[in-house]
Amino acid sequence: SGTGGMQTVTLIPGDGIGPEISSAVMKIFETAKAPIRWEERNVTAIKGPGGRWMIPPDAKESMDKSKIGLKGPLKTPIAAGHPSMNLLLRKTFDLYANVRPCISIEGYKTPYTDVNLVTIRENTEGEYSGIEHVIVDGVVQSIKLITEDASRRIAEYAFEYARNNQRNSVTAVHKANIMRMSDGLFLRKCREVAENYKDIKFTEMYLDTVCLNMVQDPTQFDVLVMPNLYGDILSDLCAGLIGGLGVTPSGNIGANGVAIFESVHGTAPDIAGLDLANPTALLLSAVMMLRHMGLHDYGNKIQTACFDTIRDKKVLTKDLGGNSKCSEFTADICRRIQDLD
Amino acid sequence: SGTGGMQTVTLIPGDGIGPEISSAVMKIFETAKAPIRWEERNVTAIKGPGGRWMIPPDAKESMDKSKIGLKGPLKTPIAAGHPSMNLLLRKTFDLYANVRPCISIEGYKTPYTDVNLVTIRENTEGEYSGIEHVIVDGVVQSIKLITEDASRRIAEYAFEYARNNQRNSVTAVHKANIMRMSDGLFLRKCREVAENYKDIKFTEMYLDTVCLNMVQDPTQFDVLVMPNLYGDILSDLCAGLIGGLGVTPSGNIGANGVAIFESVHGTAPDIAGLDLANPTALLLSAVMMLRHMGLHDYGNKIQTACFDTIRDKKVLTKDLGGNSKCSEFTADICRRIQDLD
Ligand SMILES: CC(C)[C@H](C(=O)O)[C@@H](O)C(=O)O
Ligand SMILES: CC(C)[C@H](C(=O)O)[C@@H](O)C(=O)O
Repeated sequence: SGTGGMQTVTLIPGDGIGPEISSAVMKIFETAKAPIRWEERNVTAIKGPGGRWMIPPDAKESMDKSKIGLKGPLKTPIAAGHPSMNLLLRKTFDLYANVRPCISIEGYKTPYTDVNLVTIRENTEGEYSGIEHVIVDGVVQSIKLITEDASRRIAEYAFEYARNNQRNSVTAVHKANIMRMSDGLFLRKCREVAENYKDIKFTEMYLDTVCLNMVQDPTQFDVLVMPNLYGDILSDLCAGLIGGLGVTPSGNIGANGVAIFESVHGTAPDIAGLDLANPTALLLSAVMMLRHMGLHDYGNKIQTACFDTIRDKKVLTKDLGGNSKCSEFTADICRRIQDLD
Repeated sequence: SGTGGMQTVTLIPGDGIGPEISSAVMKIFETAKAPIRWEERNVTAIKGPGGRWMIPPDAKESMDKSKIGLKGPLKTPIAAGHPSMNLLLRKTFDLYANVRPCISIEGYKTPYTDVNLVTIRENTEGEYSGIEHVIVDGVVQSIKLITEDASRRIAEYAFEYARNNQRNSVTAVHKANIMRMSDGLFLRKCREVAENYKDIKFTEMYLDTVCLNMVQDPTQFDVLVMPNLYGDILSDLCAGLIGGLGVTPSGNIGANGVAIFESVHGTAPDIAGLDLANPTALLLSAVMMLRHMGLHDYGNKIQTACFDTIRDKKVLTKDLGGNSKCSEFTADICRRIQDLD
């Protein structure tokens, strides 16, 4: 902020197709006159003091100041012991909630219509604790860690999200019939928090039952909240229902407004640099970001233009069923934004 | 065996709609002249010496002798500490492989066609170890246990299954990027076993990626093998693709030919005794059982009659979209079996 109402966002273009889809988003933002100043940073981890992997100080500082990041796909370097960049970013900024709205896109055909749900995944613990041991030769244990604090925090986030986004129900997804203590604790916290949100309907469902029901009729779901691994699975499953990772936005939310929005597809090295990539997932993530920043009007305008381009079917990238270039797809969205003005 | 080539099967009718769908299956088997003698047993757990829950001795003995069980749905009694009957049966007879063929049923409309895959789930360990602790107040851990022996055993089962059932590929489903040691061990065993089955294509895929791809195009999958919890999830997801638990058969396989085949839907207490239940899942499980016993001709005949009845759409139970009674649906299948003779 400061310079004429502009807000700074840390832009992490990423690898492979990352730079070209980031350029597409910047161009569209410019056309929409979105009051965003981009601060570009590379986050590829480096070895810090004591040999711990960390993101470079200038990237950390930028995020600490701007609080908001937009991130393209990152490849995980193959150096031995190198952590997943996604996990490292979630950890560095304590981004405890992964949020994925999965909403059917008109004109983009999948086996489902009218999907309109949001998965909210606990992003910091659970099966992702990283604690594992060899007990004896040939016997390994992994530890799933569930805490009261993290469970309450994600449950509160889910109910707040539901309330602030005009959603009616929250479903807690669990396997407390099997993991009675850990998922039991998670579920108990959801129930407790639900008590404070009488305006939102609360239900509980086994993960296997959710999967079964989801593929039979996804329209029965609204907001879903769950531990880390279940969220990993369900968020991808739900992305599949609306057309895959190429069209699904994602946000990782921390405390005090800190957040990183990202496309969750891969780096697509085979088409990198060829002007063939589809920027939709990153663009819709950037729209989520605008809303998170309170810039709803800009977000709505860009989203409308993007959906219009897709519905119109005339200028689509290959993965969307067309044969246009990334730059042409981008230009079509920009043209519509200008028309909207 | 003994009495005129008849083989004995332990029949566990189960609760709710269990008895009526079991009767339907017996009637169809009788019509098909399947050489099966039923030995009916109740398995509801009792407290044995030392307070341990166990299945009643006469049920245990029957299974020990017959080796083969057919089981309807069981409700888990609400007595404190009472174990899930499903889990207790798997444990009692060391039924280490849960096998679920998910094959689209002609004439039964779902968002998908041509699904033809089999999930093979490790049934004895993993997230189902039951080991959990409170570390400190508000911090709980659950332990996922993966062993070399169980991993090798299920991998071998999957490849043998593929070979014996004219299937071309086996996909190992895992999250070894997160649970590097436990899922890593599971995956390593799959890779090792794959070396001995050069005729079967082997691939590996992350669980989240499988879920995403599954709902986008399930026809790309053939045999899938995975640890316990992932199998719980994926087997239900895949059942959903072909129409749900009401039409999906399931088998739990142990060593030395021991096996229990079961419908995995619930007891449906609301319609129990009203002659409204759909016996398809139990019937198709019984068909799996016949094949397991080498009685392929009987199995094929019954399956053909059942699928013909469904395709014909004239005599269907309510859940299948018709308004016929269980007994009428059963009679229609019987009539077709007689016509086939
Ligand atoms: C890349 C991988 C570590 C990650 C995960 O498993 O969480 C990914 O699947 C995701 O959902 O962001
Ligand atoms: C009933 C329950 C314990 C069981 C499981 O979680 O394994 C069920 O979902 C299944 O798949 O058989």
